[in-house]
Amino acid sequence: MPIPLVQSNSGPSAQPANPFAAQRAKVEKNLGNVKKAIAVHCGKGGVGKSTFAVNLAVALSKGGKKVGLLDADVDCPSCHALMGMRGRALLDDEQRIVPLSAHNVKFLSAGNMVDDANSANIMRGPIMFKLISDMLSNAAWGGLDYLVIDLPPGTGDNPLTIMQLVPLHGIIIVTQPQEICLTDAKKSANMAKRMGVKVLGVVENMSGSVFSAGGGERVAGLFEVPFLGSIPLQSNIRKFSDKGIPAVLEDGKLLERFRSIIKSALA
Amino acid sequence: MPIPLVQSNSGPSAQPANPFAAQRAKVEKNLGNVKKAIAVHCGKGGVGKSTFAVNLAVALSKGGKKVGLLDADVDCPSCHALMGMRGRALLDDEQRIVPLSAHNVKFLSAGNMVDDANSANIMRGPIMFKLISDMLSNAAWGGLDYLVIDLPPGTGDNPLTIMQLVPLHGIIIVTQPQEICLTDAKKSANMAKRMGVKVLGVVENMSGSVFSAGGGERVAGLFEVPFLGSIPLQSNIRKFSDKGIPAVLEDGKLLERFRSIIKSALA
Repeated sequence: MPIPLVQSNSGPSAQPANPFAAQRAKVEKNLGNVKKAIAVHCGKGGVGKSTFAVNLAVALSKGGKKVGLLDADVDCPSCHALMGMRGRALLDDEQRIVPLSAHNVKFLSAGNMVDDANSANIMRGPIMFKLISDMLSNAAWGGLDYLVIDLPPGTGDNPLTIMQLVPLHGIIIVTQPQEICLTDAKKSANMAKRMGVKVLGVVENMSGSVFSAGGGERVAGLFEVPFLGSIPLQSNIRKFSDKGIPAVLEDGKLLERFRSIIKSALA
Repeated sequence: MPIPLVQSNSGPSAQPANPFAAQRAKVEKNLGNVKKAIAVHCGKGGVGKSTFAVNLAVALSKGGKKVGLLDADVDCPSCHALMGMRGRALLDDEQRIVPLSAHNVKFLSAGNMVDDANSANIMRGPIMFKLISDMLSNAAWGGLDYLVIDLPPGTGDNPLTIMQLVPLHGIIIVTQPQEICLTDAKKSANMAKRMGVKVLGVVENMSGSVFSAGGGERVAGLFEVPFLGSIPLQSNIRKFSDKGIPAVLEDGKLLERFRSIIKSALA
C-alpha cells in the first residue's frame, strides 16, 4: 500500500488560495515604491545563490539603478558577510527597521540583528515567518528600481513565505551543472509554477569544473524559460567573497557576465 | 535602538526544556534496538552532507555493521537518488512504514514517497515535523548498529526536530574549507552545544580545491572536537553520485578515507 504522507504538488491543480492575504496587503503597501522585486532561488543549498544575489544587486547598482537586497535566509544568513557589512540594523523613530547600506545597495539581513555571527539562530517556521514578514512590511526600503531577495534552499517555509507575501516580478534559478543539483533546480521551477510566480531564467554557476557543464541550459529548455548564462568556478570569486567584497567590483569580466545576465533576465 | 527581533542562542544559558517529550518517548521506544543514531549536519547547504551520509552508511555496512539511513531533508530529498533507489516505500499490515534497502543499508527518504522526483514538496514546518516524526516513530527499522541521519541545511525546523526527538549518539559536521562556509559550520557546532548533543567531529569536504583547504581543522580546534579528516574534491565522486552509486563501492582509496573517519569518530 503506497504511503499517503506526502502530497505531490505538481500537476494541473489550481494555484492555492493565499492564507496570508492580510500580511500580503501590508507588504504590498510598504513596497509600493519598489518597481521590481526579484527572488534568487534553488532547491539545493551551496550552489552560490547568495554570492549570485549579492553580485546581481551590486551590478544593477553599478548600472545606475536604485537597488535593495533582502537576505531571506534568516537562520543561516550570509549576505551581510558577503557585503562586508557586519554592523547592526537599527530602528527609526517610528520603530521601522532601517536597511543598512554598502556598495550603494540598501540591504537587510538577520546577520545584522545578532551580536555573535557564529551563534545559531535556532528558529521554527512561524518565528521565521514573523521575521521575514517584518523585514518586508516594516522596513524603510523607500523607492527602489529593484529589490533582490536571496532565498534559502529548499521548498519549505521561507521560500514559500516570500512567494506568498511579495508581489514578485519573478525568480531567477541558480544551479550547479551536476545531475543531483538539477533535480532541485527543477523543484524550484515547479514550485514557482505552482505558486504562479514567473521564472525569469536559469543561471549555471560553478560551470565547467569538476561539477560538469551544460545542465543549467537543459533545465531552462525543459521549462521553456530563458537560459541566462553561466558563471565559471574561479577562485577569485571565493577569495573576494571571503573578504566581504562583491567580486563584480574587482573583476571586470565577471561584471560583464552579470550585465549580460541582467540584460537577458530583465530587458 | 537595536532591533530585538532575533535572540542569540549562544551563551551560558541552560539547555531548553523539550516541548516534544511525548513524541520523543515514542521515537525512543521505536528506536529501542538502534545502538547509535548519528546525524550529519552543516548550517550551509551544498557542502556534500548527503553524499557524505550515504557513503558513511555504505562504508559502515561494508565493515560488517547493520546500518540504516534516514533522509531528514523532506522537502528536497536526495538520498534516494544517491542510493540509486527510486522505488516507493510501502506500509506493512500494521500500517508501519517499511524502510527500503540498497547496498545492504535500510533507508527511508521522502523521495520514495512521491510520484514525481521533480515535483516540489512545498511544506511548512509543522507538516515536516509530522513527516519526520512518522519516519522515526512509525517505521520498522528493527535492530541496527547505526542509524545515520542526513539533516537538511540551516538551524531551523528539521535539524531542530531531529535533535529534539532522537536520542543521538552525536553529530558529524561536514564543511567546505572556505570562510563563508566555516561560519555556518560554527553555527552547527553551537546549535549542537545548545541542544546538548555531542559533536563527534568535523569533516572537511571538497578539500584542497578552488575552495581552499584547512578550514575544517580550524573549526574543529576552535570547538575542541576531533578533526576527522578531509575528502578531496574529485570528479569521480560526482560522477558515481549522479549515477546513484555510492562512490565508496567503486573507489578503494575513498573507502579507506571513510574507514579512517569512522575509526576517529566512532572508536
